[in-house]
Amino acid sequence: MKKLAFALLLSSSVAAAQQLDFPAGYREWIHLTSGMDMSYNPTLMRMGHHMFDNVYVEPWAYHAFLETGTWPEKTRLVLEGREGKTEGSINKAGLYQSGKPMAVEVHMKDANLPGGWGFFAYGGDTDPAPLLPQDTDCYACHKKDGAVDTTFVQFYPTLLPIARAKGTLKN
Amino acid sequence: MKKLAFALLLSSSVAAAQQLDFPAGYREWIHLTSGMDMSYNPTLMRMGHHMFDNVYVEPWAYHAFLETGTWPEKTRLVLEGREGKTEGSINKAGLYQSGKPMAVEVHMKDANLPGGWGFFAYGGDTDPAPLLPQDTDCYACHKKDGAVDTTFVQFYPTLLPIARAKGTLKN
Repeated sequence: MKKLAFALLLSSSVAAAQQLDFPAGYREWIHLTSGMDMSYNPTLMRMGHHMFDNVYVEPWAYHAFLETGTWPEKTRLVLEGREGKTEGSINKAGLYQSGKPMAVEVHMKDANLPGGWGFFAYGGDTDPAPLLPQDTDCYACHKKDGAVDTTFVQFYPTLLPIARAKGTLKN
Repeated sequence: MKKLAFALLLSSSVAAAQQLDFPAGYREWIHLTSGMDMSYNPTLMRMGHHMFDNVYVEPWAYHAFLETGTWPEKTRLVLEGREGKTEGSINKAGLYQSGKPMAVEVHMKDANLPGGWGFFAYGGDTDPAPLLPQDTDCYACHKKDGAVDTTFVQFYPTLLPIARAKGTLKN
C-alpha cells in the first residue's frame, strides 16, 4: 500500500508540467476575444502605449466547451499582447494592432497542479517557459473572478451564452 | 464563335455572386486582427459606443496567403463588429468585447465581378445578403488603400511580414 502511494506520488509529480513548450501555431487556434487596455485597476498607469490582448484556445478544447460548458484536461489558452497604434496608413482614429507580440502567456489545465491550472509566461522568444509560482497574482485573480473554472468566460462573447445554457457559470 | 462568346458571357454572369450565404462558422476561421474604433476620419462621430472590429479568413485561404503573399480566388474575409464596454465584472479600465455581433460583412474574391472582389453586408440575422453596389464607399477605399489586392494587410500583423517577403505589397 505504501509502495503504491509512493508510485502514485511519483507519477503525479512527474506528470505535472514544470515547464511548457511555446504554443507553436496558436494564431491558427480559435480566437475567443480581443480586449484593449483592460485592467481591474481604473488608475493603472499605462506604459506609454496601448495594448490589445488577443485570446486563443486549441480547437479541440473549444469544441469540448461547446458541448459541456467547461474545459477538458490539458486545455491551453493563450493570451497574446500586441501594441495598439493610431496613426498608420489611412487610419487616423481608434487603434489597430501592429508589430510582433509584446507578450505571450499560456494558461493550461493540469490536474496534477495545485488548483488544477498552471500559468506560463513567454518572453520575446519561443523558448520553453517555466511554470509561474503559485503566489503569482494571476492564480488568485483567476480563481476569485474567473466565471468558469478559473477562466474569464465573462469576457468571451461566443462562450458566455454556452456557459449560461449549460449552467457552468460560477455562482 | 458567337455562340461560344454568348455561352461564356452567360456562364460568367451566372457565376458572379449576386448574393451570398451567411459565413456560418466564421468564428472558427483564422483570426487576422482586431481593431478598436478605427477610422480614416479623425473627427468621425462615434455612435455613442465603442466598436471592436474582428477580422477572420478561411483557413485554406490563409494557408495559400502564407505560401504566395496574396489571396486565392473565392477567398472570404469576414469583418465582425462587437461593442466595446468598460465596466463589467472586474474590469474597470480599457475595453472588452460584449454581446452579439453588431455587424457582419464579407469581402469575397470573385473574378466574375468588376474589380475582382465583392462586398456583402449582413444585418443582425443570418439570411443571405445581396452584393453591395459598386459605388459603395468600401470598393473605392479598399482599391485605393488596401496593401495587398484591395485588402488591408497593412493592419494584419501576422500577414504583413509575409507580403513584404513575397513582394506582394502595393507600391
